[in-house]
Amino acid sequence: MPPPAWRISFAIAARHRALSSVRPQFRFYTTEALKPSIALRRTKTVAKYTGLLCLSTVVGVLTIGVGILAHDAFTYNERHVDRVPVNPLALHPERGGPKNLPIARILVGDEEDEEAKSLAIKPRLVIVGGGWGAMGVIQTLSPGDYHVTVVATDTYTTFTPLLPSAAVGTVSVRSLVEPIRKVIARLHGHFVQGKAVDIVMSERLLEVETTSPDGTKTNLYIPYDKIVIAVGSSSSTHGVPGLENCFQLKTIADAQAIRRRITDNFEAASLPTTTPEERKRLLSFVVCGGGPTGVETAAEIYDFCQEDIAKYFPKICREEVSIHVVQSREHILNTYSEAISKFAEDKFKRDQVDLIILARVAAVTPTHVLYTVKNAEGKTKQYSIPTNFVLWSTGIAMNPFTARVSSLLPNQAHKKAIEVDAHLRVKGAPLGEVYAVGDCSTIETSLLSHFLQLVEESDKDKNGKIDFGEWEDMVVRIKKRVPMAEDHLVKVKELFQLYDSDADDSLSLNELLKLLEEIGNRITSLPATAQVSAQQGKYLGKKLHKLAKASQSMEQDPKTAATGTDKQAATNMRVPADEAVSGPFKYLHLGSLAYLGNAAVFDFGKYSFVGGLIAMYAWRSVYWNEQVSARTRALLMIDWIVRGIWGRDLSRI
Amino acid sequence: MPPPAWRISFAIAARHRALSSVRPQFRFYTTEALKPSIALRRTKTVAKYTGLLCLSTVVGVLTIGVGILAHDAFTYNERHVDRVPVNPLALHPERGGPKNLPIARILVGDEEDEEAKSLAIKPRLVIVGGGWGAMGVIQTLSPGDYHVTVVATDTYTTFTPLLPSAAVGTVSVRSLVEPIRKVIARLHGHFVQGKAVDIVMSERLLEVETTSPDGTKTNLYIPYDKIVIAVGSSSSTHGVPGLENCFQLKTIADAQAIRRRITDNFEAASLPTTTPEERKRLLSFVVCGGGPTGVETAAEIYDFCQEDIAKYFPKICREEVSIHVVQSREHILNTYSEAISKFAEDKFKRDQVDLIILARVAAVTPTHVLYTVKNAEGKTKQYSIPTNFVLWSTGIAMNPFTARVSSLLPNQAHKKAIEVDAHLRVKGAPLGEVYAVGDCSTIETSLLSHFLQLVEESDKDKNGKIDFGEWEDMVVRIKKRVPMAEDHLVKVKELFQLYDSDADDSLSLNELLKLLEEIGNRITSLPATAQVSAQQGKYLGKKLHKLAKASQSMEQDPKTAATGTDKQAATNMRVPADEAVSGPFKYLHLGSLAYLGNAAVFDFGKYSFVGGLIAMYAWRSVYWNEQVSARTRALLMIDWIVRGIWGRDLSRI
Repeated sequence: MPPPAWRISFAIAARHRALSSVRPQFRFYTTEALKPSIALRRTKTVAKYTGLLCLSTVVGVLTIGVGILAHDAFTYNERHVDRVPVNPLALHPERGGPKNLPIARILVGDEEDEEAKSLAIKPRLVIVGGGWGAMGVIQTLSPGDYHVTVVATDTYTTFTPLLPSAAVGTVSVRSLVEPIRKVIARLHGHFVQGKAVDIVMSERLLEVETTSPDGTKTNLYIPYDKIVIAVGSSSSTHGVPGLENCFQLKTIADAQAIRRRITDNFEAASLPTTTPEERKRLLSFVVCGGGPTGVETAAEIYDFCQEDIAKYFPKICREEVSIHVVQSREHILNTYSEAISKFAEDKFKRDQVDLIILARVAAVTPTHVLYTVKNAEGKTKQYSIPTNFVLWSTGIAMNPFTARVSSLLPNQAHKKAIEVDAHLRVKGAPLGEVYAVGDCSTIETSLLSHFLQLVEESDKDKNGKIDFGEWEDMVVRIKKRVPMAEDHLVKVKELFQLYDSDADDSLSLNELLKLLEEIGNRITSLPATAQVSAQQGKYLGKKLHKLAKASQSMEQDPKTAATGTDKQAATNMRVPADEAVSGPFKYLHLGSLAYLGNAAVFDFGKYSFVGGLIAMYAWRSVYWNEQVSARTRALLMIDWIVRGIWGRDLSRI
Repeated sequence: MPPPAWRISFAIAARHRALSSVRPQFRFYTTEALKPSIALRRTKTVAKYTGLLCLSTVVGVLTIGVGILAHDAFTYNERHVDRVPVNPLALHPERGGPKNLPIARILVGDEEDEEAKSLAIKPRLVIVGGGWGAMGVIQTLSPGDYHVTVVATDTYTTFTPLLPSAAVGTVSVRSLVEPIRKVIARLHGHFVQGKAVDIVMSERLLEVETTSPDGTKTNLYIPYDKIVIAVGSSSSTHGVPGLENCFQLKTIADAQAIRRRITDNFEAASLPTTTPEERKRLLSFVVCGGGPTGVETAAEIYDFCQEDIAKYFPKICREEVSIHVVQSREHILNTYSEAISKFAEDKFKRDQVDLIILARVAAVTPTHVLYTVKNAEGKTKQYSIPTNFVLWSTGIAMNPFTARVSSLLPNQAHKKAIEVDAHLRVKGAPLGEVYAVGDCSTIETSLLSHFLQLVEESDKDKNGKIDFGEWEDMVVRIKKRVPMAEDHLVKVKELFQLYDSDADDSLSLNELLKLLEEIGNRITSLPATAQVSAQQGKYLGKKLHKLAKASQSMEQDPKTAATGTDKQAATNMRVPADEAVSGPFKYLHLGSLAYLGNAAVFDFGKYSFVGGLIAMYAWRSVYWNEQVSARTRALLMIDWIVRGIWGRDLSRI
């Protein structure tokens, strides 16, 4: 390969600079006079290295720039760390709590500098989890509000919407992660790698299980003043046996495992000893679930085969590929608009992706997926697909910690998540101490728990009946308490008339109860999406910041607390209530989007659009804007460019 | 975070384009007239997405450029694969050979297109291994020379000199690898992922063990006409017990494992329950071996602690770090010049890296490294270092396949590698069929095997004595046969006089035997470095290309074979001999280099130089120039820039 023109011109330009700048930087050692016979070779060698050295200078100067050189010079320093002050209690924590475990009241970093010391006396905010919800909270807090500790099993936060892309190497997994320590550095926060296993709300202790590099598990308590539970969810099994033979796509480790399996399958399919039947099985990819994750993964696998496999593997490997999507409903992407579902289905049809609708997965074995479909006469028939790759993405379930929190509280009845009120406070937990955001939580939709208070507040004449004026007042109060009811309370007059069954121009308590119950039933829960989690996290972070500010000003002047309109704020002078500083959480749906091979689909409420390359760029740009750091933003852009130039990464790492 | 100015100007510029270019690309679906109450919100949403869409267009156009857009449009295609022609024998290979295994005489890709068909009838060249030697061969071959098959355990080739950098996240592992399938695409070569386990030279069959994704192992034979063994080496154990507790640094998997262990150690050291003693142990890093790999890894770990750990982890974690290098000799980097050793030692001293010289590692336990040092009186004393990270890099040993090949041939006596002649042909194997390059091979240094032939050729007057004229002729022949003897044959006259013990102006056969034996003993083997492997691979690839060309012209005109000066070429009309097309392999040492934190050292023979930042850039540029593909070159540069701006990647993936 001849050197490209720009490299040659680099080298020429470099020879100039070398004379003035490079030479003084080195000490040359000459041990012995050169023998004539090898002088030429040595000279050549020296010339080569001088050339390379010159080139390097220019490469350094041109591409990295003087700024980065200065930065390098700055980061490559020789400073040494002085003796760091540490509280003895941080080195040997006291034991306590119901299980007599070590309690991390003081962390090793709490006295390391003045800033750490000033934060150590602040209220302790513990955030459990490192996903969208947790990042939302962290991003909207201000330094100095709290002594922040993040507890998470992974040391990094993941940009989950692009996991399907990472699973086939379109983007690098490294571009989707940001170390949590870097994110919390702004708040001078602390990070504890561990798994939350239990909570003692009476003593405000979170029990965390940590694992040392040799696998030993140690439990400890982390004390909190406020805690945010943002641990996400696990996959719903729907009671299907054999799910241990499936992949999921929730973490970076999942994406890496999928990537390895896909390349392994293609390598094994290329082996001379692989039989035609086995090759067909190895190249059969089954996705269970027709939601965005499933559909995007199927589309990415198709792209990967079409563009990269076809180029570098024996052609028969491309020919034998089959991709199957098993969906229980009649359409894929069924939470999106009908037009989008249809577009996706047409696209899959053109791409010969096998779409199996109205099917239930009966079992997954190491070599097959079994599913049943009801035929026209209502008889169930079982089919099977030989495969060596099954992705399971069919909805969410509680993880063990969420289930534990839920079981500790008497009025938690939801099966899939922790119920929170409109202020994202966990129902039944000490008020203003325990919050939950994201997939692990669900906002209560029932209005009945507010019934008595609503009547007390709105029944101005205390006659035990609600007339229309009082009803209008009550609607305002309901909307404030449960913003999600808003859409169902638009026709105030009509609702009043509809439920006023005895037509006495007022609602009896029984009539009101029925009205509220039925409206509550109509409210749908928020979907378990990154968008909801991020908005909840940001809402909560902002509120926690306001609470910290309010608390600080109260300390300075206790009378200001009385200005809070809320009862609770008035009864508790020291701690401002959530209602005093913030309204309830309101979700604003910004639209859904999905990537479909050489196309993308967008759905935002009444509008939806679908398209080809330009839509794909739009899809990329939306995600690009939502990145947690400039670093991942740059890396993603680089990944897309690299894929454009050199294709996807085929190596199994 | 306010949007930076350039993003705002993007958006403004974007709005222009949107009108003309974006709109026609999409189909809009409006399902229902908007209700007034939510119209504003929807409008806002639409505006937001239109903005993003516009931005995306510009982002697409500006950063990726029209070219890549066109490329994307080209790669995202909808072509379908037609029925691929496959030979039935490729699907169900015949069995045979000593173990009656399937023999892959025809591969599934051999009849897929015209090009494949024309290559299928060429001589079969099998390359075992995917490292520097194998890449050297592949890069210098021409398409059409051979039917090439590469057999390797990993699907990618690794840029090994930068593994220490990858182990701490200075560069990404992805930037160091290139899929072998992409490298051999130029030759339309084939790839078989598997481990070479045996060879049947009489039938020219390589036995390969393949592993399916479920772990089942299947063995098969791959037939060859010529085979290149380039399987590298494994680590020398020196009989030390407990090496299973050590890391090595030979593969990407090693670098990833080291990276995980280092971050795990720091996370565990940050936990509130970690005792001060355990923290010290977790943050103690021991490197056994003072060669380039060991020294570079120690330097990289130091940099990582100094720059990245200090920033994001509790300060005590930086304070408690200790790095130890255990070296059996008196100096580290002892194959480099003395000045370089000293520079490295001084640097480590300043950095408080603990250098333990003249020490032998006695054992490695899961928690400690035990080593012995002889004191001044010659008494051996044992010490131990508590640690949770031990790197073992102390020299090479044969891997099982190399040992098997060596054991099959009677005249292979070398303990660490397969002996080859100066033409890199495996000694004792059928001539011109079996080659070996790189760490798994060593070029014979003994001149005695050439003794009889040399005498026959040079003793012109057949008097059983060698006079000075004949000796001069012999020296030329020796240099041609064993180029490594060249340095020891400079003083032709003096050697002749020295060994002419009876001063009769001629060497008797006994005198000559002694001379040749002693010169042979003085030749040192080539070091097991990437540089040697790459040069050997390139040499062999060029020769194989010439052999193919010679063979083709012979087929066209059998008389041309007679022009070969070598005897063997004359006796075998069909197959040209190595000697007829190429001289023996000559190694040209281009210098050694090593990275030492904020500095680098270079050693090329008589000159050496050491330096700071500029040397570091030079060090980078040398490696940058040796990359196997433009892709890895670009990725490496990006990695260095990313490290410059955002520091090393801390996440454990």
